[in-house]
Amino acid sequence: MQQFARLRERLGRIADVQAAQAVLSWDQETYMPTGGGGARAHQLATLGRIGHEMLTDDEIGVLLESAAVEVASLDPDSDEARIVQVTRRDRNKAVRVPASLVAELARTTALAQQAWAQARSRDDFASFCPHLERVLELTVQKAEALGYDECLYDALLDEYEPDMKASEVSAVFTHLRGELVLMVEAIAERPAPDDTCLRRNFSAAAQWAFGEAVITDFGFDFERGRQDRSAHPFSTNFSTTDVRITTRVDENFLPSALFGTLHEAGHGMYEQGVDASLDRTGLAGGTSLGIHESQSRLWENLVGRSESFWAYYYPKLQEQFPDQLGDVDDATFYRAVNCVEPSLIRVEADEITYNLHVMIRFELELDLVAGTLAVSDLPAAWNAKYEEALGLTPPIDADGVLQDIHWSFGLMGYFPTYTLGNLVSVQLFNQAAQDLGDLEGQIGRGEFAPLRGWLHEHVYRHGRKFSAQELLQRITGGGLDAGPWLDYARHKFGALYGI
Amino acid sequence: MQQFARLRERLGRIADVQAAQAVLSWDQETYMPTGGGGARAHQLATLGRIGHEMLTDDEIGVLLESAAVEVASLDPDSDEARIVQVTRRDRNKAVRVPASLVAELARTTALAQQAWAQARSRDDFASFCPHLERVLELTVQKAEALGYDECLYDALLDEYEPDMKASEVSAVFTHLRGELVLMVEAIAERPAPDDTCLRRNFSAAAQWAFGEAVITDFGFDFERGRQDRSAHPFSTNFSTTDVRITTRVDENFLPSALFGTLHEAGHGMYEQGVDASLDRTGLAGGTSLGIHESQSRLWENLVGRSESFWAYYYPKLQEQFPDQLGDVDDATFYRAVNCVEPSLIRVEADEITYNLHVMIRFELELDLVAGTLAVSDLPAAWNAKYEEALGLTPPIDADGVLQDIHWSFGLMGYFPTYTLGNLVSVQLFNQAAQDLGDLEGQIGRGEFAPLRGWLHEHVYRHGRKFSAQELLQRITGGGLDAGPWLDYARHKFGALYGI
Repeated sequence: MQQFARLRERLGRIADVQAAQAVLSWDQETYMPTGGGGARAHQLATLGRIGHEMLTDDEIGVLLESAAVEVASLDPDSDEARIVQVTRRDRNKAVRVPASLVAELARTTALAQQAWAQARSRDDFASFCPHLERVLELTVQKAEALGYDECLYDALLDEYEPDMKASEVSAVFTHLRGELVLMVEAIAERPAPDDTCLRRNFSAAAQWAFGEAVITDFGFDFERGRQDRSAHPFSTNFSTTDVRITTRVDENFLPSALFGTLHEAGHGMYEQGVDASLDRTGLAGGTSLGIHESQSRLWENLVGRSESFWAYYYPKLQEQFPDQLGDVDDATFYRAVNCVEPSLIRVEADEITYNLHVMIRFELELDLVAGTLAVSDLPAAWNAKYEEALGLTPPIDADGVLQDIHWSFGLMGYFPTYTLGNLVSVQLFNQAAQDLGDLEGQIGRGEFAPLRGWLHEHVYRHGRKFSAQELLQRITGGGLDAGPWLDYARHKFGALYGI
Repeated sequence: MQQFARLRERLGRIADVQAAQAVLSWDQETYMPTGGGGARAHQLATLGRIGHEMLTDDEIGVLLESAAVEVASLDPDSDEARIVQVTRRDRNKAVRVPASLVAELARTTALAQQAWAQARSRDDFASFCPHLERVLELTVQKAEALGYDECLYDALLDEYEPDMKASEVSAVFTHLRGELVLMVEAIAERPAPDDTCLRRNFSAAAQWAFGEAVITDFGFDFERGRQDRSAHPFSTNFSTTDVRITTRVDENFLPSALFGTLHEAGHGMYEQGVDASLDRTGLAGGTSLGIHESQSRLWENLVGRSESFWAYYYPKLQEQFPDQLGDVDDATFYRAVNCVEPSLIRVEADEITYNLHVMIRFELELDLVAGTLAVSDLPAAWNAKYEEALGLTPPIDADGVLQDIHWSFGLMGYFPTYTLGNLVSVQLFNQAAQDLGDLEGQIGRGEFAPLRGWLHEHVYRHGRKFSAQELLQRITGGGLDAGPWLDYARHKFGALYGI
């Protein structure tokens, strides 16, 4: 295993450079002063180029081939065999993209991200438009370099959801959309719950303390992670022992920080739970964004918006906010945090309409990448789709096309994974409930160790060793299936709305 | 200038990698969770190795020679000519040190820094001892690789104070020490001022706000910098437009955060003031640590502990802390912040005894590097020197040999620059006063733009273009001179103590 050991050392250094990039990006979103932006773009571009050059170096190719021979006799599911297999796949993709394009994308998106933040705060799409045009141009170049079978978009989707095709996503989404529209219509005919209790004044510090107390109960490890503020919540990791999550706080809307914290902690626990043996290999992360999102949505929604969760936590929340919630009973509160209503902002949408927000973005991305929609026409297209799907037109772009950070980062092909994650979250949760027996009861008693242990055993520890498809197959014996999520949604919201 | 342009591009990437290292180090000292330490050590080692390999790459050597020909006809003080000259010097030194040693030093010191923090908090030198032994071993290897004329220590000193020799430092220190001892003795015979007003309870948030208000007046630019908390105050920069300073707050001792903030802002304004044309060249920083320290001590002491400064700020401080300082008059407060008294902690020492703390460290470093003092004997040697020089023996190592972070980072040869900085600060301040006419009056009116403008013109903007010696020569027409500092100290403390 001498060649494998040499490979491992090289991969360690590549992982170090990627971790450094992640630290610089985290700092850019959390603490960097505005003046630091230009230099940061250069730094990210240089690290992007170096990491890419290291992975595509001929010597790594040679080492991979020799290591493949060495691991051929091992269990194909061993760390060693999987490290060779996954790294080969990563490298085969990387060699298709020139280092200059990687660097240019890193620099351009760092600047575009800053332009987006300014444009959003000033509701000024025009100032962001040239940045997004350049990002799209480079992203399309990347997709062309990566190659594809069916359509250009597939090359991008594969970056986030390996082996998934746009046509498969479309098929799932088309089926789902019909059902969602029926649900939203049925709910719209019922009396709307009163959610004014969520819109009182909740001090930022107390919100922060409550959220961190809950995720500490979940098992997020603050010795190996931390939470900071940022304009757009996210999670990132620099190793399995240093996982950062962020959220934002709205003093006049309780769910924003609270569910943001639970969501990001779900991502964070996944990263913290990867086997230490995979650290510094390139495999110490989530296996796909869909699987990653299944972890965040599981804790945010299936746990955090459940009746049993609030049976346990609502008295504690009332203790934290006696003036704001003393006069609100638990049933009212539970209905309020599960209020289904067409709205403009994805990250604050309910569990049902959330998926419509995702589908809109998916459709727009397909058109942008195919070249059938110009960036300058994007706001109008966005507004038209919101009117069609949700019956709402954003009054300002800041609450419309400018709301998400993703495209400024060149993250196209990323959005559909959010809904895939929703679907998978229920598939996994159902299996956990079956294996654990009394999952609802455990949640109602604030006992999260069994659920987290189950996820650790079946999902977390494997990191990127198994693909999303393999992982699902190993756990559920089947593949992606929208059925369980639809059953869950019909059952939960049927009960809530008396349908 | 085609070769120069190519060189410039390569230097930009090297500077990017060094900036990334600085971000990772800053994060390690400010926000990194304890669990992140092991991975961070690897990341810093890898970036250290990459930056070193980039600088020592043969192609840079060839480019430097071609660029030297191109710039030969330019003004030797032009940016271009100086970039070639200074980079050649940096590279000539770098090529002597193997990349493996650079990486090993980076990894070892990252771990040693964490071990030091733990050892200090637990007062446990023994746990730090093996780390420091390894750091010393590698540092000596580095010194041997770098080479020297007179003694091994010179090779290290040259890293921080280029072209300075230990024998020169010893000569200056010997002269100074005699005078310092006389001053301390004379002061000890006078009644001690009452400094109890500094030891009342001052809320951390109010201290923070006051310090940031003062350095905003000084001209520290928060659009291009920020201040955070850390166990040991420091300043660092990721570009001239992103300069970070840190401090620590003691709610029961006002000077700690306040003078820490003024000190670090002095460093920070230097970094912010370097000409943007030097960004991403390796020349965008302080030219030597002595000059850097002259900038921090100038703002901390010559401005911040002066009578005119407090004539302006004391009423504002009283407004911030009416309960704590309402009954303390300005003369009492001024004497309190200038109280001279032998003490254990360097960073909280007065202007006179501070230099004795530095001399102790310099002498110990000489012995450590020469191999005549074992690391395991360091605490006893430290305590003996404190007893001899200051008449005090640290009751615990946390207040003795473990108080400074420097050696854990491998920073040997660094301490003497603190006293060099004190000496230079007065040389520069006197010249500024002569050029500006009414400097004391300006400070007394809170007008700092003239002083900062003078420093910008004569010091800041040049970055590393001129050596410390050249810079001093350009500004004062002479070289390093302890006389002005001695005159300043005799005059100021003579008046304060009626000597």
